[in-house]
Amino acid sequence: MEFFKVLSIEEALASFFAHFQPGAPRIERVSLFDAPGRILAGEIRAGGPIPGFDRASMDGYAVRAADTYGASEGLPALMELAQEIRMGEAAVEPLLPGRAAPIATGGMLPPGADAVVMIEYTEVMDGSSIAVYSPVAPGENVVEAGEDVKENELLLPAGHRLRPQDVGALAGLGYGEVPVAVRPRVGIVATGNEVVPPAEDVPPGMIRDMNTYSLSAMVRADGGIPVSYGIVKDERGPLQEAIARAYAESDVLITSGGTSVGARDLCQEVLDGLGRPGVLVHGVSIKPGKPTIIGVAGDKPVFGLSGNPVSAMIGYQLFVHPALKAMLGALPVRVPAVVRARLSRNLASASGRTDFIRVTLRREGGELVCEPILGKAALLSTMVRADGLLCVSLQKEGLREGEIVEVTLFQ
Amino acid sequence: MEFFKVLSIEEALASFFAHFQPGAPRIERVSLFDAPGRILAGEIRAGGPIPGFDRASMDGYAVRAADTYGASEGLPALMELAQEIRMGEAAVEPLLPGRAAPIATGGMLPPGADAVVMIEYTEVMDGSSIAVYSPVAPGENVVEAGEDVKENELLLPAGHRLRPQDVGALAGLGYGEVPVAVRPRVGIVATGNEVVPPAEDVPPGMIRDMNTYSLSAMVRADGGIPVSYGIVKDERGPLQEAIARAYAESDVLITSGGTSVGARDLCQEVLDGLGRPGVLVHGVSIKPGKPTIIGVAGDKPVFGLSGNPVSAMIGYQLFVHPALKAMLGALPVRVPAVVRARLSRNLASASGRTDFIRVTLRREGGELVCEPILGKAALLSTMVRADGLLCVSLQKEGLREGEIVEVTLFQ
Repeated sequence: MEFFKVLSIEEALASFFAHFQPGAPRIERVSLFDAPGRILAGEIRAGGPIPGFDRASMDGYAVRAADTYGASEGLPALMELAQEIRMGEAAVEPLLPGRAAPIATGGMLPPGADAVVMIEYTEVMDGSSIAVYSPVAPGENVVEAGEDVKENELLLPAGHRLRPQDVGALAGLGYGEVPVAVRPRVGIVATGNEVVPPAEDVPPGMIRDMNTYSLSAMVRADGGIPVSYGIVKDERGPLQEAIARAYAESDVLITSGGTSVGARDLCQEVLDGLGRPGVLVHGVSIKPGKPTIIGVAGDKPVFGLSGNPVSAMIGYQLFVHPALKAMLGALPVRVPAVVRARLSRNLASASGRTDFIRVTLRREGGELVCEPILGKAALLSTMVRADGLLCVSLQKEGLREGEIVEVTLFQ
Repeated sequence: MEFFKVLSIEEALASFFAHFQPGAPRIERVSLFDAPGRILAGEIRAGGPIPGFDRASMDGYAVRAADTYGASEGLPALMELAQEIRMGEAAVEPLLPGRAAPIATGGMLPPGADAVVMIEYTEVMDGSSIAVYSPVAPGENVVEAGEDVKENELLLPAGHRLRPQDVGALAGLGYGEVPVAVRPRVGIVATGNEVVPPAEDVPPGMIRDMNTYSLSAMVRADGGIPVSYGIVKDERGPLQEAIARAYAESDVLITSGGTSVGARDLCQEVLDGLGRPGVLVHGVSIKPGKPTIIGVAGDKPVFGLSGNPVSAMIGYQLFVHPALKAMLGALPVRVPAVVRARLSRNLASASGRTDFIRVTLRREGGELVCEPILGKAALLSTMVRADGLLCVSLQKEGLREGEIVEVTLFQ
């Protein structure tokens, strides 16, 4: 017996994104020190080549490669010493044929020079000449101008999430600041007559608010700014007031709670009243997380997540996470942190429903073994003990012991 | 020809940790909103059971399970209605035999009740009784007191890195704040006559500072506080002054630069002069990253990383990262983000040296294919284009096309 029409994950996402098409994200400029983890708001092309000149990649002598051809231990090439190239100085004087200019790693090759002989293969003969015991090819022991990044080359696409190497490269291109997507404000309203703040005593019949904290952490990890609007009773007046305020002040609204039918109906009504088109999805064929509410009010996404802490987290990951990524203009993760592991036992699952199984992983004889954690959706400790989630898709009626499964790691 | 004694990664780490044994980390208390990503400074046990009472996990009626035995569609159990249990209120009145108390998900079971009949399997007969069409077992549709977390149960060990579910669980246990390890201050000194800040014009022969930014981002990701001490020339006076100041103000000191022999020697001398035991390692059998300097001065780790941006990042990951983890008292990552992939081509590697190959990953026919990016250690763009690193160990002389390899994903 169903209280509402239940959609698959794909149907729910399609329905949501049919009504929510965020434009280009708002842009702010942040210092490179604050940029890691942020989403690039425009593509980055090199304004000039990196390096801007041919650089030595070894300590030795800058030479014309042709002058070293045929050099060997037995028959070294004798070359006249040119002036030493000092680090950080422009080498403007051309290197004459038959000459070798002392150069350190990172030094600029003078005009005419096209290779570096490593110091190991040379010997100083007197104050004015050296012996070269091994030939070099043109370009050897040199990083050529533009070899790291060519002028106008696309280094980073818009929507890229900045990693340490990316901010390093941006510095190399001359960016002191970088344009990134403004972090969306995500209002979080915890609901339930039975819910009290964590620092308070919890009388019989009551339970402490957990979802505000786990959801805030997820919002932050996704690049949003979580804003808690506290705990509200399951009564129309206070609920309407808190939700209206959070909606007005946020770019995205999340409620959690209302796990009982009456509370869910009330929450859905209030969310639906925020604006057009209103609630689009009220129930998804997942376990846990079935009673998830998804809607769009005006240009803002609104989500009614379950009060069960596991269901709330899974509902968040499946629906709020992609909404935030779309708002930030973030590209899909190229290679998700998914590992393959051998399932330790049979797992039953109802067909027509996607199950998210919390699992631990352990190494056993060179392979990972995936151990399901059984426990109700109300038990947050099952998530705490887990290393990741195993998804049993809609079509499957379960998985067999010994099957190789893919587990999405918690980060 | 070697300029210094080169150690393996394991030897270098052993030498470092023989002289660096940080005690328990300093502790600070932070709000749960600021706790994600921080390292727990003590173990967390439940002060009381969660939930604190038997809770309904479905909407329906709280009953004594025995009263429903034998109930069926054809022969329902008729039960007298007891007073409704209101959400968030303590159910103190015992449930008498033969009675059923309306209860919503999350409601408290009254004394005597041991199960919940789902509303779907009942029918209201008149104002004072219901028919139950299906039996329930004791505990059915109930989350028992302590079923999530038992009193005094270890929920999180000291050294655990807090994830969203962990802060949720801490809220559930009544923590408004949580004790975490104080973030170590990591001073970063960029060196080199040829290095200029990113926002400045870069004259011929000069190159912009990249390492300060990539290393700062890595420090932050590892839970440290990066502090940049700018760019210093490769001259004894200024170098000594900047390094002494950074050392005095930081818990860990990193220099980058000095890729040429002369600059490296100078940097090593200055680092060695900071305190006993001084420089322990000057050269590691890795590529890139060979000229890495590792030392301990007094009770502080000091690192001289290469000026090559790729080498600096790899030196950081291999040596600074474990030092910071030790200082924070962080537990090892249980399941690292490592994926298995098929190598797209033969890869040569010198035996006796550990190679770190930057790779891209792509899906091809249901499996990941690992494509090495070839390019010198001076080219940060090779890290920017990469999805992760492939490590070719000391013992191997290379890898063959088609081999299954493990790739550590960039996060």
